[in-house]
Amino acid sequence: MASDNAAGVHPAILEAVARANSFHALGYGHDQHTPLAKKLFNQLFDAEVTTEFVFGGTGANVLALACMLKPAQAVVCTSTAHIAVDEAGAPERFLGAKLIDVPTVDGKLRPSDIRGVAHLRGSIHHAEPAVVSITQATEMGTIYTAEEVRAICETAHELDMLVHMDGARIVNAAVALGASAKALRSFTIDAGIDVLSFGGVKAGLMFGEAVVFFNTSLASRVEYIRKQVGQLNSKMRFVSAQYVEFLQNDLLFKLAANANSMALALYEKTRHHQSLGLATPPVVNSLFPTIESSVATALRDWTFFWDWDIANNQYRWMTAWDTTLEDVDLFAEGVSQALKI
Amino acid sequence: MASDNAAGVHPAILEAVARANSFHALGYGHDQHTPLAKKLFNQLFDAEVTTEFVFGGTGANVLALACMLKPAQAVVCTSTAHIAVDEAGAPERFLGAKLIDVPTVDGKLRPSDIRGVAHLRGSIHHAEPAVVSITQATEMGTIYTAEEVRAICETAHELDMLVHMDGARIVNAAVALGASAKALRSFTIDAGIDVLSFGGVKAGLMFGEAVVFFNTSLASRVEYIRKQVGQLNSKMRFVSAQYVEFLQNDLLFKLAANANSMALALYEKTRHHQSLGLATPPVVNSLFPTIESSVATALRDWTFFWDWDIANNQYRWMTAWDTTLEDVDLFAEGVSQALKI
Amino acid sequence: MASDNAAGVHPAILEAVARANSFHALGYGHDQHTPLAKKLFNQLFDAEVTTEFVFGGTGANVLALACMLKPAQAVVCTSTAHIAVDEAGAPERFLGAKLIDVPTVDGKLRPSDIRGVAHLRGSIHHAEPAVVSITQATEMGTIYTAEEVRAICETAHELDMLVHMDGARIVNAAVALGASAKALRSFTIDAGIDVLSFGGVKAGLMFGEAVVFFNTSLASRVEYIRKQVGQLNSKMRFVSAQYVEFLQNDLLFKLAANANSMALALYEKTRHHQSLGLATPPVVNSLFPTIESSVATALRDWTFFWDWDIANNQYRWMTAWDTTLEDVDLFAEGVSQALKI
Amino acid sequence: MASDNAAGVHPAILEAVARANSFHALGYGHDQHTPLAKKLFNQLFDAEVTTEFVFGGTGANVLALACMLKPAQAVVCTSTAHIAVDEAGAPERFLGAKLIDVPTVDGKLRPSDIRGVAHLRGSIHHAEPAVVSITQATEMGTIYTAEEVRAICETAHELDMLVHMDGARIVNAAVALGASAKALRSFTIDAGIDVLSFGGVKAGLMFGEAVVFFNTSLASRVEYIRKQVGQLNSKMRFVSAQYVEFLQNDLLFKLAANANSMALALYEKTRHHQSLGLATPPVVNSLFPTIESSVATALRDWTFFWDWDIANNQYRWMTAWDTTLEDVDLFAEGVSQALKI
Repeated sequence: MASDNAAGVHPAILEAVARANSFHALGYGHDQHTPLAKKLFNQLFDAEVTTEFVFGGTGANVLALACMLKPAQAVVCTSTAHIAVDEAGAPERFLGAKLIDVPTVDGKLRPSDIRGVAHLRGSIHHAEPAVVSITQATEMGTIYTAEEVRAICETAHELDMLVHMDGARIVNAAVALGASAKALRSFTIDAGIDVLSFGGVKAGLMFGEAVVFFNTSLASRVEYIRKQVGQLNSKMRFVSAQYVEFLQNDLLFKLAANANSMALALYEKTRHHQSLGLATPPVVNSLFPTIESSVATALRDWTFFWDWDIANNQYRWMTAWDTTLEDVDLFAEGVSQALKI
Repeated sequence: MASDNAAGVHPAILEAVARANSFHALGYGHDQHTPLAKKLFNQLFDAEVTTEFVFGGTGANVLALACMLKPAQAVVCTSTAHIAVDEAGAPERFLGAKLIDVPTVDGKLRPSDIRGVAHLRGSIHHAEPAVVSITQATEMGTIYTAEEVRAICETAHELDMLVHMDGARIVNAAVALGASAKALRSFTIDAGIDVLSFGGVKAGLMFGEAVVFFNTSLASRVEYIRKQVGQLNSKMRFVSAQYVEFLQNDLLFKLAANANSMALALYEKTRHHQSLGLATPPVVNSLFPTIESSVATALRDWTFFWDWDIANNQYRWMTAWDTTLEDVDLFAEGVSQALKI
Repeated sequence: MASDNAAGVHPAILEAVARANSFHALGYGHDQHTPLAKKLFNQLFDAEVTTEFVFGGTGANVLALACMLKPAQAVVCTSTAHIAVDEAGAPERFLGAKLIDVPTVDGKLRPSDIRGVAHLRGSIHHAEPAVVSITQATEMGTIYTAEEVRAICETAHELDMLVHMDGARIVNAAVALGASAKALRSFTIDAGIDVLSFGGVKAGLMFGEAVVFFNTSLASRVEYIRKQVGQLNSKMRFVSAQYVEFLQNDLLFKLAANANSMALALYEKTRHHQSLGLATPPVVNSLFPTIESSVATALRDWTFFWDWDIANNQYRWMTAWDTTLEDVDLFAEGVSQALKI
Repeated sequence: MASDNAAGVHPAILEAVARANSFHALGYGHDQHTPLAKKLFNQLFDAEVTTEFVFGGTGANVLALACMLKPAQAVVCTSTAHIAVDEAGAPERFLGAKLIDVPTVDGKLRPSDIRGVAHLRGSIHHAEPAVVSITQATEMGTIYTAEEVRAICETAHELDMLVHMDGARIVNAAVALGASAKALRSFTIDAGIDVLSFGGVKAGLMFGEAVVFFNTSLASRVEYIRKQVGQLNSKMRFVSAQYVEFLQNDLLFKLAANANSMALALYEKTRHHQSLGLATPPVVNSLFPTIESSVATALRDWTFFWDWDIANNQYRWMTAWDTTLEDVDLFAEGVSQALKI
């Protein structure tokens, strides 16, 4: 229950990688798989989008934002956003740009938050808020509805700002909102998102994320910048082959569906421990229980999971594409044992 | 009442500049005035400090922080800090570093704010808080006592962090706390500050600020970095000559004392307008009245001053080294007229 | 003969500064002088240009280039360019961009040098050469004719590149090419330059340079970026007042004319020392004599001048707006004495 | 013959990846394979080195240099160095540092090249040359002997500079110099290299490079910076498992030995075409023939290879770990056909 990063690679993905190895292919995307993977992204979003592959999630976010920002501009995000707290300052170092991070109750930015910083635009003394970045599903295990994303995009665009979505766990959100390409489109391209970091690693891939430009005019220099940010994969086929597999036969939704449903199962099996404070069922694949510190330590010695808000004794349990009901039962049993002590 | 930036240059300073022009002098500080000005800083702080001159305040802050930060580190400051909101993202662009800005009630950082971000240290996923930057006097017209600065420095140093002071209005603070070199030392070098941006322009100079390293080991590359940040003045004598004049005969304290006392006079003459909400006398040279928006517009058409917190109809009135009692009377009369309408 | 930076400020400029101090004025350019100085730049170039003032020359260059570059692009310049060797890496640090520096025989870039790097365009593996930066007069005391600048601009524009001119000593070049606004225009705006760093300090100002956009579409974010690079002068009137004086009554040309003619006088008085290798008369205000090292040391102990190419015993003698014939005679006499030993 | 990047993954490596997938493992290197891979690097270099894994070669170089540079310092390299011309300006953008690139005849830096820029140290006007970066094998297919590397390191260290080696093809060089760990050590750790980018992808891995610190004091912030440069792999075991396989049973040397010997075979089979100008046998795995442009086009339509120096009709043929004698024969036959036309 440590993280969906701790899960391995789905067997079909691994086989796709092995198959991609059966012949020579030119580097840097001039292979068979990369154009095919891009075509599958077009189908997924039912539009001619521009898709580029990178190594990792921080690279995806930095590349997306680098394509969206002009000098002396700033990014508006939540104070719990991965770009704000979990990328070791990569955005500031690479972009040379300020992140304006807004506190929220649930990890979700509101249109009012955007309006609240709009007065910083148009004054030469301030870094100009120009890009809004939201995470779907959020770092706090919540999701934006399609309507909520649309409201954010409308507010941002009205103010002449662009919208980026960090989709490190976008497939989990898509499953929660309908488990279909249509559902996925509803809160991305259809809602007005300009650029999307599309994550596959947490959902069952080995490595490699995608940056998808719905607003393709922003992609004019993306390939140069990708190389410049150290995200150009020389043997790119080994990433694109994974996406070719992932995007076919609804594999992406199947994997995320398992992660989400196992989180729900874990909730059902642990919610009776009132001290955990698990008031509402998870919408994606994480639970944020409150555990008394010595209990947490004991439980963690047995199987690792992450701190969340240590000041409030809050932790994070996270399920993955390969979590089984047996895993859930075993973990729930462990929790019961730990809480008894 | 717009800003202490709107005041001109004190006549003695202007004369010092003119005198410095009476002969050739080598550039880049290899002149007569620069070593003398540095010596006067040593006397002011009663220590062998390292002082370097720059063009402006943003340059001073960026240079100071560039000498204090290692890669992947962050600066902790208040959410109203000049570096956070009024330098157009210069710190992020030049330093490539994150600013962690903490909300405060009065523009003053507390030791608890530092402890509150200390958990971000030691994890490779987070930009590491490594420098605390406080402003004296603060952007909200408040000041730190010597004890408060010392508590901040002790907390920071205990956590292996350094402390920078943005002293754009440090002389105003020094006057409020005793109007002497001893008072100035009490909340800077004696309190444990590592590096100080020492401001003279708002106090009556023409241009040019100083960066003073109390922790001189941090200054090993300061001259290289100064050139790199575009802050090396080729005809440096015209800055250092100003400081030679400014630091002698208590001129710095006299100028700031006038600014502070004129703010107090303005407070006395306007506090009876209850709608202004001027509950407490100013400690330095600014007042933050609340004015109904149409009244503010009318008053501003007559004489300019800055917005402060537009959401709350709050504005800033600021006095300067050259503000006179007549100016105060005239302005107070204008306020009375505007409020009558 | 150390540098035109070692000269002071012309008396008329100093008086203009003093006059600008006679009243309050809003900061950041919202004063009387700044719009007037901008208008005079329009007149000088006989066009509606966009002019912004900065503190220093490195700041001017960095600001100009920041307005011209997109991500993952590069600047082409000579290997002796000030931006390449004398700005402590400021362009790389601030711009995050590569400088491609081309060796030359005389400090002058040729169209063939631009064509020589054109193959680096259009490949995602290379930083894309996108801006050409030339210096007028060059760091080696040579100048580009109007035709030469035009050929460079045509070549660059044909390749979809922009052209920046570092004009730290542009007035000296203008004097050499005609000493008139018309001459100045011939090798700048008329020749196709996009953005010009216009230098005044070496010609007799106290501090403050200008960035002039002939291609005004590049100036859309210049004011934000100026603040971000630490080049926004709060009491801007003290710079713009200097330019108001400098640009009127041909003062700029008169000052540079003196510097140039004194260099010629020095050449005439020292050229008979064959060991100096002064084969051709200077076109602007510098000579590059070859001096045996022990002689140079002796001469330098007497009066300072800079190394140029130490491997070849080459030094730089430089005259200024205030150099007199007496200075030249005295210096020439010193040279004769030193060479006798 | 396009590139060693066009080869796939060695079967044993692919199997190691598959095996690493058979169980859960914590992310970010807290797995079984990463400590083991680090231990194998210690054995390879017979020392307690610090090894960290990254995604790609540009990331490895940028991370290494970021750990070695202080502000306002510069890197000295050849003008053909990968960091100088083939990383799209990544070093400048991420490091904010100047690269001083020195022309060479054969892609190899000499001690005299380092001494030639040493005068730039110690002056605040210049970015200070502080790190020397050499590539082994070089981008021009040449190699440094152990003595040559030692001479470079001694010169650099004497001048208080550090030395980085870009080892994208280090195993090919090691094979050319003895094909043993001892040979590898002789021109790296034993010769005085401070930090090494150790490349595996061109030698037969799927993705993932290593940065090896022989000077471990430089590694104090490497893990933070790795995350900041977007090079922290969440499912790191899939890289480290590859290295565990690669470093055992001399697999690394066997793979590179094949690439090198196939280049030699190709040389033997094509050297009789005098127009190709293949005067000397290759030392590693690349040939740089001269081909008339129309012939090259025809040959390239048949099978792709890269331009090298288009002005001189020079191209690059490169063999890989999986090139066979049949491939060589077929290609040599194609060359003969093309040259006949």
